[in-house]
Amino acid sequence: MKRIERYGRIEFAISGIQSDRLTEGGAVFRNGEDTRQVRAFRTDAGEYRVRFMPEKEGVWDYRISICGREMEGTFECVPNTGNNHGKVKADGDRFQYEDGERYIPFGTTCYAWIHQTEELQEQTLRSLSESPFNKIRMCVFPKSMPYNNNDPDCYPFYKKEDGAWDVTRPDQQFWEKLDKRIRQLGELGIEADLILFHPYDRWGFAELSQEDSLAYLEYCIARLAAYRNIWWSLANEYETLFKKTDEDWDAYGEMLQEQDVYGHLISIHNIFAPYPKRNWMTHCSIQLQSADLDQVLGWRNEYQIPVVIDECGYEGDLAFGWGSLTAFEMVHRFWWTMLRGGFCTHGETFHREDEVLWWAKGGRLYGESAPRIAFLKELLYSLPGKWHLPEMVGKNPNEADVPDPDMSPEEASGFRLFFERLWSTPKEARERFLAGGCPLRLEGETWYLEYFNRIRPVYADLHLAKDRKYKAEVIDIWNMTRETAGEGLSGEVRIGLPAKEGTAILVTE
Amino acid sequence: MKRIERYGRIEFAISGIQSDRLTEGGAVFRNGEDTRQVRAFRTDAGEYRVRFMPEKEGVWDYRISICGREMEGTFECVPNTGNNHGKVKADGDRFQYEDGERYIPFGTTCYAWIHQTEELQEQTLRSLSESPFNKIRMCVFPKSMPYNNNDPDCYPFYKKEDGAWDVTRPDQQFWEKLDKRIRQLGELGIEADLILFHPYDRWGFAELSQEDSLAYLEYCIARLAAYRNIWWSLANEYETLFKKTDEDWDAYGEMLQEQDVYGHLISIHNIFAPYPKRNWMTHCSIQLQSADLDQVLGWRNEYQIPVVIDECGYEGDLAFGWGSLTAFEMVHRFWWTMLRGGFCTHGETFHREDEVLWWAKGGRLYGESAPRIAFLKELLYSLPGKWHLPEMVGKNPNEADVPDPDMSPEEASGFRLFFERLWSTPKEARERFLAGGCPLRLEGETWYLEYFNRIRPVYADLHLAKDRKYKAEVIDIWNMTRETAGEGLSGEVRIGLPAKEGTAILVTE
Repeated sequence: MKRIERYGRIEFAISGIQSDRLTEGGAVFRNGEDTRQVRAFRTDAGEYRVRFMPEKEGVWDYRISICGREMEGTFECVPNTGNNHGKVKADGDRFQYEDGERYIPFGTTCYAWIHQTEELQEQTLRSLSESPFNKIRMCVFPKSMPYNNNDPDCYPFYKKEDGAWDVTRPDQQFWEKLDKRIRQLGELGIEADLILFHPYDRWGFAELSQEDSLAYLEYCIARLAAYRNIWWSLANEYETLFKKTDEDWDAYGEMLQEQDVYGHLISIHNIFAPYPKRNWMTHCSIQLQSADLDQVLGWRNEYQIPVVIDECGYEGDLAFGWGSLTAFEMVHRFWWTMLRGGFCTHGETFHREDEVLWWAKGGRLYGESAPRIAFLKELLYSLPGKWHLPEMVGKNPNEADVPDPDMSPEEASGFRLFFERLWSTPKEARERFLAGGCPLRLEGETWYLEYFNRIRPVYADLHLAKDRKYKAEVIDIWNMTRETAGEGLSGEVRIGLPAKEGTAILVTE
Repeated sequence: MKRIERYGRIEFAISGIQSDRLTEGGAVFRNGEDTRQVRAFRTDAGEYRVRFMPEKEGVWDYRISICGREMEGTFECVPNTGNNHGKVKADGDRFQYEDGERYIPFGTTCYAWIHQTEELQEQTLRSLSESPFNKIRMCVFPKSMPYNNNDPDCYPFYKKEDGAWDVTRPDQQFWEKLDKRIRQLGELGIEADLILFHPYDRWGFAELSQEDSLAYLEYCIARLAAYRNIWWSLANEYETLFKKTDEDWDAYGEMLQEQDVYGHLISIHNIFAPYPKRNWMTHCSIQLQSADLDQVLGWRNEYQIPVVIDECGYEGDLAFGWGSLTAFEMVHRFWWTMLRGGFCTHGETFHREDEVLWWAKGGRLYGESAPRIAFLKELLYSLPGKWHLPEMVGKNPNEADVPDPDMSPEEASGFRLFFERLWSTPKEARERFLAGGCPLRLEGETWYLEYFNRIRPVYADLHLAKDRKYKAEVIDIWNMTRETAGEGLSGEVRIGLPAKEGTAILVTE
């Protein structure tokens, strides 16, 4: 009996099918109580394929029945091994792999990398393999905008005689390339955050009818959902796809929810403001429109799902505000976002006469942020257990456990009055104040990591448990150093700091 | 006949008055149609004084009548000279002196400088005289908080036998010191932004009854309004004066409006969110609670009066977020705020064992921002004529003059759709987007000054009139250099930039 690793992929081809449809139903996989139905997708004339990712060990039997052609059999799903941990899923305000392994997204952005030359695509993969990035934002459709003036070698569909796209005829050259690239990313441990629609278009993909768009999406699901490293990003800058309405976006989200039997992650990326909360949305994929990363706290509260800042500017030197961050600012934005309980995505836009900019075409990384992002990644992955944000300073004064019982009556009264005033201010201002007053800190069971933002105190006062011993390390986020500031510490301790931007401390028991 | 310079000050003392009141009415000054009534204020036992600032040239006659004691006479008001330009007033979204002279506020902060030793106060004045600052935030009452643990040599009032403040008995030692310091600031061309109430208090001034507070305020007006360089700041962090209500604050504002016959500037400073707009408010005095200085645009729109960011953090190295900006960040915040059409205020908080920090006690400046603020000040004062902000990119698409008539029909359609979408997003998000997309730029009749924020493009494309000739200079806000990047420029021009943070360009015809 054929053996497939859990979260692996099994594929079946059935030829000689008489159908004009892009996808056809009729494939059922069963393992005990667990039954999954997936759709078959058309490849070449008369051929359909079925792909399946078993997520449960044991014997699966399957029965495929397409337009009268049938196929059935069994295979055994065996334990996953090595770096195969299954799909990434949301878990409260963070992510993790299906098998429970830790996953912290450190994304990058190469929107149109698969639309470049074979040589450049290979170079992109080499660069990715040497980078810290474990998620990539990339588009299905080619991209047209400044620095993106070349046509791709192939398109997802053939054209009709009148020049319009024929979404019933997928170009296998394109889809096999996409298959291969997603698979290769998976081998590198990189999640493919696949952008299904985007507005940077001179070919007409942004203006497909809703019917055609849904047919295309159904094809994507049937073909790609069995890759464990796929994430669905409905759009980049959804508001500027002028032909689409919120109802259209909801229809995509709902189709994904219904037809992707694995429940891969689903998000939608904005230009102006995050898309309103929806049932189909597994996490927020946000473009920031100001330097105010503190909004992460508000979005966490509002959406109650993981918040990924998928665009907060790119390291580069373009004349566009979105593409001209210093490396330090890029690294700082990673620290800031992650220590507010969100996640951040990288991109790089250094002006080049050959127009090969990482953010769109991939190629090589020229900037200085990636190694520092790697340093942060290594640090966060090294910290044991789960973590949470500090309990907000700004609790509602009517809540029972504030103020602190150690306070004197006068202190307690002042505390209450302060927060009563705060609670009577408008929500936006209150959230800014609370975010500003709340340290950028992650707290674990036996440690905390605090980042001093762009400020640079000359010392920090640590308030440690009196009956335990702690070690304090001072971290330089730019020079990527960790220096021990004290060991065997307890109670009230003052440690010296280098009084420079980009400083963090790690306190461990 | 006695001659007084316009915006100068004339003072009369009447003794032997039988009254317990802090102030008494009964002084009338008249010059033609112009009649002004001011109150007399008590000094020593039985003595009252009347101060008056004539703002109109020519012969004034006056008649003072207090509790039966009378005095009358005339004096001549002659033209103002030298650096005497009268009081500062609001003029649309900016300020100017009463006589029309340009005034751009470059404030600093020494909350409790008059409560320090005589020697330290003198040193503060010397430091101010060498600084670019032309406004200072300072408190009437002494200050109690970290780094502010010393008691002053005298207080505004004597105490009653029960230990409470007797606001009917002002301590002349205190008030003469305050008079002198305000006068000395005036001689240095520095506006005294006098904070009337504040919460950092261990003596009880923050908890005076409303009746006592109003009596004190009436005394301040009678005594200090005749100084041309006085500004009234009702509070620092008004929300944390827990004993006061919005009605109390409004009563202060209304009393100032009514009794300050010169109409000096009036504002109130917040901790959480700006005080709602009021008729008595001449400008906004705002503490920012995030790094998002772009809010300046929203406040300009909302309040339609000048916006002064009186607290956006201080240059320093304290363990408090509000007191730990790098010098670059302080300078950057001045540029950012001013090129968004607001104004900014400096402060300095370097940790010192002797607790003499500029922000509270004055003394010396140790930081690196002040010379760079001077560079910006010199630059702005050198630019001819009035300026305005760029016309916002984000006009309502229903307004007649957008899109640009030069656009192709497709461009115009895309433009309309884009802004229709933008206009349907919530106000906060829309304002962030518009602010983010709007260059940090001041535009004069024959020049514009643009700051690239913390981004660092490698070039800038200038869109200049084809029939005029321009000079472009690249400004390094940190190294304080101006380098000519091109002369005789017109039409579409690309100029190289140093690709570093802190870059601005000045384009002049």
